[in-house]
Amino acid sequence: MPISLGELATRFSCELIGDPDITVDDVAPLSNAGSSSLSFLSNSAFKKQLSSTKAAAVILSADDAPDSPTAALVHDNPYACYARIAAFIRPRPMLAAGVHATAVVAETARVANTSHVAANAVIEDRSVIGENSYIGPGAVVGPDCVVGDDCRLNANVTFVRNVATGDRCVFHSGSVVGADGFGNAMTDEGWVSVPQFGGVRIGNDVEVGASTTIDCGAIEDTVIENGVRLDNQIQIGHNVHVGEHTAMASSVAVAGSAHIGKRCLLAGMVGVAGHITICDDVIINGKGMVSKNITEPGGYASNFPVEGVRTWNRRVAIFRRIDKLLARVSKLEKDNK
Amino acid sequence: MPISLGELATRFSCELIGDPDITVDDVAPLSNAGSSSLSFLSNSAFKKQLSSTKAAAVILSADDAPDSPTAALVHDNPYACYARIAAFIRPRPMLAAGVHATAVVAETARVANTSHVAANAVIEDRSVIGENSYIGPGAVVGPDCVVGDDCRLNANVTFVRNVATGDRCVFHSGSVVGADGFGNAMTDEGWVSVPQFGGVRIGNDVEVGASTTIDCGAIEDTVIENGVRLDNQIQIGHNVHVGEHTAMASSVAVAGSAHIGKRCLLAGMVGVAGHITICDDVIINGKGMVSKNITEPGGYASNFPVEGVRTWNRRVAIFRRIDKLLARVSKLEKDNK
Amino acid sequence: MPISLGELATRFSCELIGDPDITVDDVAPLSNAGSSSLSFLSNSAFKKQLSSTKAAAVILSADDAPDSPTAALVHDNPYACYARIAAFIRPRPMLAAGVHATAVVAETARVANTSHVAANAVIEDRSVIGENSYIGPGAVVGPDCVVGDDCRLNANVTFVRNVATGDRCVFHSGSVVGADGFGNAMTDEGWVSVPQFGGVRIGNDVEVGASTTIDCGAIEDTVIENGVRLDNQIQIGHNVHVGEHTAMASSVAVAGSAHIGKRCLLAGMVGVAGHITICDDVIINGKGMVSKNITEPGGYASNFPVEGVRTWNRRVAIFRRIDKLLARVSKLEKDNK
Repeated sequence: MPISLGELATRFSCELIGDPDITVDDVAPLSNAGSSSLSFLSNSAFKKQLSSTKAAAVILSADDAPDSPTAALVHDNPYACYARIAAFIRPRPMLAAGVHATAVVAETARVANTSHVAANAVIEDRSVIGENSYIGPGAVVGPDCVVGDDCRLNANVTFVRNVATGDRCVFHSGSVVGADGFGNAMTDEGWVSVPQFGGVRIGNDVEVGASTTIDCGAIEDTVIENGVRLDNQIQIGHNVHVGEHTAMASSVAVAGSAHIGKRCLLAGMVGVAGHITICDDVIINGKGMVSKNITEPGGYASNFPVEGVRTWNRRVAIFRRIDKLLARVSKLEKDNK
Repeated sequence: MPISLGELATRFSCELIGDPDITVDDVAPLSNAGSSSLSFLSNSAFKKQLSSTKAAAVILSADDAPDSPTAALVHDNPYACYARIAAFIRPRPMLAAGVHATAVVAETARVANTSHVAANAVIEDRSVIGENSYIGPGAVVGPDCVVGDDCRLNANVTFVRNVATGDRCVFHSGSVVGADGFGNAMTDEGWVSVPQFGGVRIGNDVEVGASTTIDCGAIEDTVIENGVRLDNQIQIGHNVHVGEHTAMASSVAVAGSAHIGKRCLLAGMVGVAGHITICDDVIINGKGMVSKNITEPGGYASNFPVEGVRTWNRRVAIFRRIDKLLARVSKLEKDNK
Repeated sequence: MPISLGELATRFSCELIGDPDITVDDVAPLSNAGSSSLSFLSNSAFKKQLSSTKAAAVILSADDAPDSPTAALVHDNPYACYARIAAFIRPRPMLAAGVHATAVVAETARVANTSHVAANAVIEDRSVIGENSYIGPGAVVGPDCVVGDDCRLNANVTFVRNVATGDRCVFHSGSVVGADGFGNAMTDEGWVSVPQFGGVRIGNDVEVGASTTIDCGAIEDTVIENGVRLDNQIQIGHNVHVGEHTAMASSVAVAGSAHIGKRCLLAGMVGVAGHITICDDVIINGKGMVSKNITEPGGYASNFPVEGVRTWNRRVAIFRRIDKLLARVSKLEKDNK
């Protein structure tokens, strides 16, 4: 679907520098865009790719625009502008509405006529699927779930039970929402499982990555607010509360009853202990461990970058005698008095 | 199902302080329990919620009982007592026995008449499902498996092959048991896969979390003893042995041939190196790395909690010169002599 | 299938020390091999098990051969030799070719006549399955995928879309290949999803572990080269490039656009930041964090092994005052002048 730069500029509120009649029909990275492709520069660090691009046009910021060798769509948020234009130029293929012959929908469940339930999907008792939603092959929506409008549960997603989503949510393959939380009471005869009665309540515009797990609450619900983005392989324990527009990169683990604020960013492999509160607007660097409440916005870290293994091991050996080092300094100070 | 406090006290061996004819029909947290709900206080840290609760009764310890504003069921393990009463008051709904029309059960497999095999589940050759067990939608029991009595394999669980469980085990959605262990031999032409012939042997009363993976053994079996509790996103390598009543929180990784004792607690994101032995009654704090045998019971750790990113980075920079710091102290000592 | 040591020596290029007419029909570990079993010693650390083995024969190196109490198949890579002989003695059972009645294959998809598509598997539009491949129960091959010859997609594997594999690849249960990468642009109204148009391109002889996730690229493809081995629970972000014969142990996370060289070894729980380049022949020890480019081959680390929790906490407390310790040393030096 070729579209003119003039139309794109109008639709997506860009300033156009160049010929409005030039058309593009695809998106591509700066380095290998062809003459009918649109590209973008969202990070000035990649600016040197700009000079040699063969793209028909580039989406970029006003600061970078003078360096564009080709037509420019200028926007103060080039990455978001690119995201919107790309979704417009290459829309996701629509699937015909309907329930595949091999899908199993319980008699007490309801699926909107506009939604697509794929091969071998299963929708269990009393669950409701909203308008224009997609339940992928092999996906299971357990009992007592509500899926909103315009949602996608991709292939082999599992909603265990008692999960409610808002609209426009995406769940990637292998994600599991609503499994029992990890509640165990120790006795003389071993662990006794604590029944997990709560559900999972998910807002609008939430995206949940592949193989990510979100447990149901113990009595009350686990809550994921509007606009949260969870990458792959993340664990969200029971009764966790994740504030709106918070994003977590892959392999984060959040233990039970933690309360994470709005607009937080948790980088990959961060761990959050149970019953912790993190305020709004907190950034945790990769592999950081949060074991106490955080009450001030800002950046936090507790990682060590790799070094050559011998160098590293020598430092660890010194660290393992750091109390002796401290004592030696104290003795020197005493002797010096 | 309303039940009187008197009956609960008798059935669950509590001391009742209050009117035995009061009835309850649900459980709820202290903070929002209604007048027909039973609540519990298992951790004195939450004691201030006790004074304002509107619950009909509270399960708590003898120490906390005097502070209860309402009827009290006194037990020396209030959390376990709550777990048992909650399971009694809100029993898991029983599913009708039978094999769903869309499930596929191999001719050589056997499913007890009392068990439920849900839609689109698959049970392969020579596998046996015991009494009163549940195989959820989309779950796959590969060849040569034995599932005990009263087990639950929730939706989209996979037993790859040669997995045997005891009774009363629960496998949460997305868990994979019996995949090939990671055995590779390097050659000049690249890796050669080492065939993995072993199985996975699981005791009674084991619970395995969502997206947790337990690999089969290389030649002998991977073993999970009675009463083990594994949270979500855990990896158990081939030939690992986990002792009874050991519990692991989410995102733990245990490398091949590690031997973990009984009643151990591994907090979230702990890593255990291959061929390591950990004795009984060991607790590893979150994110700890176990790379040598542990022979003494007790608590172990190797994590750093987050700090403000600038503070943290300054400390890391000093750490990266810690050998110089050590040398400076040595020189001072020498000069002082 | 009993086979003589003489034939094994010829087929697998070993030197035989012992009677060529002895036959073996199984493989077993040194410690419990019976008199018709073949065993192996690949690591001299386990040599003391050699003296007491009851195996019919042992595969080992020339250095260890003199200590064998039984017949010896001598090879300079005993582990690889064992791997090949074990696969020969106990070949994987062949499944009859064909598509199970409950599998769903799109009209526009093509499955080679020699391949097996198991119960409740789904193959979507325009996807192609090569010769002698296996698509397990509940596995989903989404649209526009190519599966090569002699591949195995085990039960409940998901190829989301636009995934191409070479030949002889294995995907373990629960793995998800081709899910959308994690691309989000922040705006005043929250995150905007950046469409992910790329695919995943996988070479020959690649093995992908259970619950491992490999995301599709943003515009170009995510690339996994020939012979790569990925263990369970690994996350590979969009546009990552993994060089041939690189192996990663469980629970590694590689962020988007990282470029990892050939023949690298990443131990368990390693994290690699986005846009990082790691050269060939790099080894990262367990839990290491790679946040800068690595340009020299060799070993790298950034982990701390566990210690008793009190000892550890005391050291962390000193570390948290390490800048003060540094200042005290500087002052001592100044005073000493």
